[in-house]
Amino acid sequence: MRAIQHKLSVARGEKPAELLFKDAQLVNVLSGEIYRTSVAVDDGRVIGLGEYDANEIIDVAGAYLAPSLIDGHFHVESAMVTLPEFVRAVVPHGTGAMVIDPHEYANVLGMDGIRYVLESSKNLPVDFFIMLPSCIPATHLETAGARFTADDLALMIADDRIAGIAELMNYPGVFLGLESELAKIEAGKGKVIDGHAPGLRGRNLNAYALAGVRSDHESTELEEAREKLRLGLHLLVREGSTERNLEQIIGLVTPQNSANCSFATDDKLPGDLVGEGHIDHSIRKAIRHGVSPVTAIQMGTINTARYYRLKNYGAIAPRFWADFIVIDDLATMSIQRVYKKGRLVAEKGRYVGQKAPEVLQPRSTMNLSYEAEKVELSVPDGVTAKKIKVIEIVPHQIVTKTALETPKLLNGKIMPDPERDILKLVVVERHRATGNVGVGFVRGFGLKRGALGSTVAHDAHNVVVVGTNDRDITSVVEGLQKMRGGQVAMVDGKVEAALPLPIAGLVSDQPLEIVIEKIAELNNAAARLGCKLDAPFMTLSFMSLSPIPELKLTDQGLVDAVNLKLTSVIAGSG
Amino acid sequence: MRAIQHKLSVARGEKPAELLFKDAQLVNVLSGEIYRTSVAVDDGRVIGLGEYDANEIIDVAGAYLAPSLIDGHFHVESAMVTLPEFVRAVVPHGTGAMVIDPHEYANVLGMDGIRYVLESSKNLPVDFFIMLPSCIPATHLETAGARFTADDLALMIADDRIAGIAELMNYPGVFLGLESELAKIEAGKGKVIDGHAPGLRGRNLNAYALAGVRSDHESTELEEAREKLRLGLHLLVREGSTERNLEQIIGLVTPQNSANCSFATDDKLPGDLVGEGHIDHSIRKAIRHGVSPVTAIQMGTINTARYYRLKNYGAIAPRFWADFIVIDDLATMSIQRVYKKGRLVAEKGRYVGQKAPEVLQPRSTMNLSYEAEKVELSVPDGVTAKKIKVIEIVPHQIVTKTALETPKLLNGKIMPDPERDILKLVVVERHRATGNVGVGFVRGFGLKRGALGSTVAHDAHNVVVVGTNDRDITSVVEGLQKMRGGQVAMVDGKVEAALPLPIAGLVSDQPLEIVIEKIAELNNAAARLGCKLDAPFMTLSFMSLSPIPELKLTDQGLVDAVNLKLTSVIAGSG
Repeated sequence: MRAIQHKLSVARGEKPAELLFKDAQLVNVLSGEIYRTSVAVDDGRVIGLGEYDANEIIDVAGAYLAPSLIDGHFHVESAMVTLPEFVRAVVPHGTGAMVIDPHEYANVLGMDGIRYVLESSKNLPVDFFIMLPSCIPATHLETAGARFTADDLALMIADDRIAGIAELMNYPGVFLGLESELAKIEAGKGKVIDGHAPGLRGRNLNAYALAGVRSDHESTELEEAREKLRLGLHLLVREGSTERNLEQIIGLVTPQNSANCSFATDDKLPGDLVGEGHIDHSIRKAIRHGVSPVTAIQMGTINTARYYRLKNYGAIAPRFWADFIVIDDLATMSIQRVYKKGRLVAEKGRYVGQKAPEVLQPRSTMNLSYEAEKVELSVPDGVTAKKIKVIEIVPHQIVTKTALETPKLLNGKIMPDPERDILKLVVVERHRATGNVGVGFVRGFGLKRGALGSTVAHDAHNVVVVGTNDRDITSVVEGLQKMRGGQVAMVDGKVEAALPLPIAGLVSDQPLEIVIEKIAELNNAAARLGCKLDAPFMTLSFMSLSPIPELKLTDQGLVDAVNLKLTSVIAGSG
Repeated sequence: MRAIQHKLSVARGEKPAELLFKDAQLVNVLSGEIYRTSVAVDDGRVIGLGEYDANEIIDVAGAYLAPSLIDGHFHVESAMVTLPEFVRAVVPHGTGAMVIDPHEYANVLGMDGIRYVLESSKNLPVDFFIMLPSCIPATHLETAGARFTADDLALMIADDRIAGIAELMNYPGVFLGLESELAKIEAGKGKVIDGHAPGLRGRNLNAYALAGVRSDHESTELEEAREKLRLGLHLLVREGSTERNLEQIIGLVTPQNSANCSFATDDKLPGDLVGEGHIDHSIRKAIRHGVSPVTAIQMGTINTARYYRLKNYGAIAPRFWADFIVIDDLATMSIQRVYKKGRLVAEKGRYVGQKAPEVLQPRSTMNLSYEAEKVELSVPDGVTAKKIKVIEIVPHQIVTKTALETPKLLNGKIMPDPERDILKLVVVERHRATGNVGVGFVRGFGLKRGALGSTVAHDAHNVVVVGTNDRDITSVVEGLQKMRGGQVAMVDGKVEAALPLPIAGLVSDQPLEIVIEKIAELNNAAARLGCKLDAPFMTLSFMSLSPIPELKLTDQGLVDAVNLKLTSVIAGSG
């Protein structure tokens, strides 16, 4: 860092700037204007607007110059690549800073997961700010790799790159005033407290806001979003791979309330990030739905920076980082070039930034104590199993339903029945070698042969397997253990397709392109085995998500996710 | 404070609220909407929007309910009354919170002045947040009661009610990178850094913004204001007693940039506050100039609260303080009732809040060592005084000009000459009993008899006297000393009118109404003595303001305020 004195002399015009971005249509998100000017840059920062002498001239040639884009809420693990690989996907789309919630890493690795994210996100052309995961484990009905209390959050909160407390997903706990949840809000005082309250309305929403929560990204309907905005929650309009709410709620945004609105993606697969885009996609879509380009860009830049108190991000003015995007056409948000602290990092959709230094991978997290017999499900003596509870998948949603079906029985054991699409679902604990195995049944995958398995399994990320027979299920569990975690499709003991995820069982150590390719191979393999779902491994990863109704399976067994208690597979027996 | 658990149960609708403001047209500055709803209040805070059971119903009967107003920059000493009296002037106009810069108290009393303001502003129906004065003394050419360095600011900055560093008036010092000024910015890191840069444009303005300054309230022209807004300075649109900039710059404000705009008054006399209004006047005027009511009210509430990080102020939503105004008609901003933390504090223009407890007055600050002979100005031996430099008043401005006039001489002494409106101006140091007396001449007061004196004399607040003869000048100095400071008009040793200001020589210990009356009496007395100025004591108070061109007088002597150096009264002799 050269001294402030040098930069001031550049600003005063006494010394030449390092760079001048000449002849730009500046998108000034502070004055809400677009006008022609030049921008002087030195030591990675904007020094001045207007004409300046410079050692190097970058001719913007009348194109639009806007601040780089900011994602307000993202789980980086959803992209299944390391952060150095991740930035290769989003930088060409204009992303310059992100607020991330490493919820999955923390579930598996605890504080070491937070440390790993802080360490591996250094010196990249995207600046990452971290919200501390607030709900680990998600419920008491699953065995996670870690447990965060308010004390753990308080221990980490002071770090400069920690922006606050991530989404308080236990929203009933908050509005009911559970001491554990209020203590987490208290731990975040002075920083940002993010919310997560899908469908919450009325008095309980008032109580949720009163408790100190400051944002929400879960609105799926316009009137729900309006109510949250009215109560003072910053509105993060979400547009990810599966949860896509922009079209439903963007009509709420006006220039008079847009300062309280931003964009977020939450979860997005690497192929979607590369193909469709990131926050540029949200801006493009908002403009298509009638939001003015300046307002839409404010939502993707300064509004997010202000809400999360990201100092010197989100605008082009003196003191701000020289994080710029050059846009050909505002309506289509076609991003020509991307600059980070004045350096070119992407051009025409191609990443041209530097390669990041290697970071030590975290410890192995596949700590299984597995016995094949445990996947068998016998009807206990004296019990008649007329019906069993089957998890019924609702396509494109993370909620499930409960179906009651007549079981297929063989020697007192309940068997999968691919003909009726009743497959066996198994969850094997993988953090503490407890030997816990949960067994249940699921309808909707449609597999005719083999089994699919994943160590990405929200939120505890145990091993989850769906299969047509016990032998393939066991092969999958053993195969995933050998891979140090990942996703695999197997039939007759043979691997059809596999994506090893050795980093926490969540993330690959391979380049972006290979991960995208392997995800496609997995989907193709699943289809060959008879699966009819669009994204079978994503659906599989939500089968354990015990806070979301109606019926789920964890390592502790079948979960009645409406009443948050364990339940028996055999209907009528408790 | 009742526990959060109680308030959450009220929000959930399980217990009745203390109060329900029923059937309001809510001005929701967060969603940018006006709509009909009710507001539940408990323990001084908003608990919920919508229908709630309550122990007491306040029927708003379809009137508008908006958040109480916030002034973003004000010097409370300009109202010349104590804070408990001051709130009686502004509360009926809807003011609920203010950001104040006790610049004058600090110049006289140093840190004790800050402490006095913190102490005497407690438990009032306006919440006061304090910016630490950053330029004390204003220049090295005057003797003030105190001196603040960055170390002094650092000592006080952590207090909860200190919002940041007040206007960095030495703007050349900032853009030139003087270590003393940059250290003040550094001392305020993490809080707000206010600016003051009248007329500053172009590269030096870029440097000023780059150094870390975040606001400005000195813009007098629209293009000046636009440039500041573009460079990231929060724009405080000023409308005070004398500096009135709203009409010139309000055209710049659009819904897309208004989040970066607020209102401020800077200095306003008590009579103007009572008669014309406060921030309600700014909003009214902005609406008259085409700003939409919602945007104008946002500028007077949430925008200011956000910029200064006043937590839980500036909006009506759960967790915010129940600081409300009830408005009959939005276009005229006619304020019917004012509530502070749910309690009625003004009704139909009448203050109905509680009387504040007594606060110990600060120590006496009239420490003079005065000898009458010192006001005589002799022409030194061997010097010929063909011309003298006379301070020429420019009506309604704080800048002055230099007139060269032939002196009236008597026994080798330069005499005042009321016939040509050349009066004697005297400044007597009053903080450290140095015996310093500055003597000069001024044109523009027009007095024919007697003398006027004031211990309000920006920025060092020494004793300043303008007079037609030395005897009355000495009477005024002695009279002010007896009054422990104040403002006085005397002729032939007799008091024509007087406003004692025993608190720091700046502020009265009397009720608001009496101060307003005495200010009128002083103006009348000055007129009787021949003065033609609208506000002679305000003009007198600016005669010592050494940072403002062109010619001023301090206790150290005549000041060339263009080149910031002492100069001789006798032209051509240095």
